[in-house]
Parts: sequence; C-alpha cells; structure tokens
Amino acid sequence: MLTLYYAPSTCALATHLALEYAGANYKTVRLDFVKQEQRSPQYLQLNPKGRVPALVTSEGTLTETPALLQYIAQTHPEAKLAPLADAFLMAKVNEFNNYLCATVHVAHAHLRRGHRWVDDDAAVEAMKKKVPQNMGDCFEMIEGEMLKGPWVLGEQFSICDMYLFTLAGWLKGDGVDIERFPRVAALRKRMEADPVVQRVMAA
Amino acid sequence: MLTLYYAPSTCALATHLALEYAGANYKTVRLDFVKQEQRSPQYLQLNPKGRVPALVTSEGTLTETPALLQYIAQTHPEAKLAPLADAFLMAKVNEFNNYLCATVHVAHAHLRRGHRWVDDDAAVEAMKKKVPQNMGDCFEMIEGEMLKGPWVLGEQFSICDMYLFTLAGWLKGDGVDIERFPRVAALRKRMEADPVVQRVMAA
Repeated sequence: MLTLYYAPSTCALATHLALEYAGANYKTVRLDFVKQEQRSPQYLQLNPKGRVPALVTSEGTLTETPALLQYIAQTHPEAKLAPLADAFLMAKVNEFNNYLCATVHVAHAHLRRGHRWVDDDAAVEAMKKKVPQNMGDCFEMIEGEMLKGPWVLGEQFSICDMYLFTLAGWLKGDGVDIERFPRVAALRKRMEADPVVQRVMAA
Repeated sequence: MLTLYYAPSTCALATHLALEYAGANYKTVRLDFVKQEQRSPQYLQLNPKGRVPALVTSEGTLTETPALLQYIAQTHPEAKLAPLADAFLMAKVNEFNNYLCATVHVAHAHLRRGHRWVDDDAAVEAMKKKVPQNMGDCFEMIEGEMLKGPWVLGEQFSICDMYLFTLAGWLKGDGVDIERFPRVAALRKRMEADPVVQRVMAA
C-alpha cells in the first residue's frame, strides 16, 4: 500500500493522477497548508523538506514529482504510463518533466512563494509582475517545441501529460490565457473529460 | 558518437563527468557565453532553450541534467553508474538529482541570473543577499538528510555524486564555506583526487 501526502492545488496532483491511472493500491493523506501541517514534527519525520508530494512506500519515503512519476510508471509496467524499455524516450520523458519541475514550477512559485528567494517585501512584489511573462514564455516553449501532439510524447499518453495537465491548470491564476496555447488547451480539455481525472479531481 | 555542448563553470560538468566515467564515445563542443554563443541561431536549432548542457545523440538532442545523467547510466550499464534494476533506488537517484536541479541550482541562480525572475534592478540586488542562506540551507539538508555516505547512495558511487560534486563547487562563489558540511567536503576531495575527474577538469 502506497500513501500519498498531498495538498489541494499543488503539483501533488500529477502524482495522484499517475497513481489512479496506474491502478495502484494507494491511499491519500491531505495536509492543510493553512494549519502548516506540512511543517508538523510528524510530517517532517516522513519528509524533512516539509513539502508535498511525498509518497510513502514499504521501502521508505520518496519525494520530487519527476522521481515519483517514473517510480509509479516503473512499478506498474502493465499500465504503460511511460516508454520504459527505451532509454532515449525515457530521457525525453525526464527532460520534459524536469523542465516542468525546475523551470515552469519555479516560474510559477515566484508569484506566491517569493520569500523563498528574497527577504525584501518590495522585491517580492516586483517578482510577481514578471510571472505572467515567464509562464507565458514557458508555455510557448512547450506548445511550440516540446508537445508533439496529441500527447506530449506523440501518440502515447504518459506521465508527462499528467504533469502538464497539473501545471497548465495554474495558468489562469498566473494571469495567462491558456487559449494562447491551443494544443496545451486541447490536451487539458481531453483529460478533463476523462473519468480517471474526474475521480481524482472529486477526491 | 555523442556530442556534449557545454560551457565552463556550469552544471554541464556533471554530464561531462558521467560521460567520462561511463567510458562513452563522445566529443565536446565548448560554447562561449561571453559571445552569447548559446543564443546563436545554429545552437538554438539544436537546443531551443539556449542553455547548456545539451547532448546530441543519433536519435536527437537531450537536455536537463537529471535526464542526461540517467540516460548515460542506462546506455552504459557496464559502468554501473546507477542502480538501474531497482525502481525504488532509481527513484532515490532521481529524487536527489531533481532536488539539485530544481532547488539547489535555482537557489544558486538567484545570485547572477536574477533577471530571469524580475525586471527591477533593486530586486535583483535584494535576491543576491539571500543566496548564501539558501545555499547553506540546501547543503544542510543534503549533509544531514540525503547524503548517506561515503557516497550519496551509500557504498555505491553514482551519477548523484557527479552532480553533487558539480554544485558543491559553486559554494565558495556563493559565499558558503563547504567545511560546514564535512561529508560533502570529503566527497568532493575524494573526487578531486580521482584521475577521471582530473581529466575532465583539465579539458
């Protein structure tokens, strides 16, 4: 039994989707960020980073979305969530997921998590102004260079789509119109209509 | 034949080390950032992100250090650079590498690449002030929670060590004394004495 620690509206959604698509045997534990439950001594013992997602397995806790997505795909090969047997295509999977994690998520975080990188309040405000431009630039790169269509890898639906679905859901709050990126918008609409996604979103 | 595009003092060093430890058939192309060669039309055709590293393979270009490191380990299994057969340990590898990429490298980038996230010059200056604290916090997490010792994964030397070696080399320039982290410092010293590392550093 796997246990996913998550909070609503975070990138933990990608891992939640992967668990559901994998047909994994899992349960979820919701953390309340308003109550700072991610900083409680009990949680920090599981995940010293004090963030979500964390996936508790029989062998220990795992963190970092790209690592979790590959782990779920590898341990549930029958679900065919990634091109596991092909080193080059797996590198494309990780290249994509890593870009979402280290560039797109980071660009987004400058809107509400500016204090991670600066103490000065005026600088935190200044950071917010550039978020729509940076998120727009990131999604132009995804739309124009990275998303093969109809899915990220082409014909094969994969963990990359679950992660992209999650971060594309942040665009509106970041002041960017998803309709600027027709292929990303279409991917999100197709997934929104999928009962698997609807089950996870309802949970 | 693989071709690594790199620039000195960048995270491309981790991939360069992995290629050398793998005994890969590769050549390198050095880009001059002062001349903005990473923004030349020719390079942008290879790698639209306009950054390094990029690894050109017979199947296409790959980017993002964690993806490149896993690719090199997977395509050179005889070099035993990662615990390829164990999904949980591979997730620990990617968890570690992803933390370096999305948290540590990002913390470091706020020193000299602040304009990525803000247009205001005063805010760029304000960001610089927090870099020593953030890099120190990251390496406390690595020293205390992540580095098993003597190598990142324990007894097995891996791609994680090559990446950690690279980013630990930035501490001095970021205003952090590596001696605060004795196990990280020892790992770096052991690798500096390794002829493989010396070959790459000389190149």
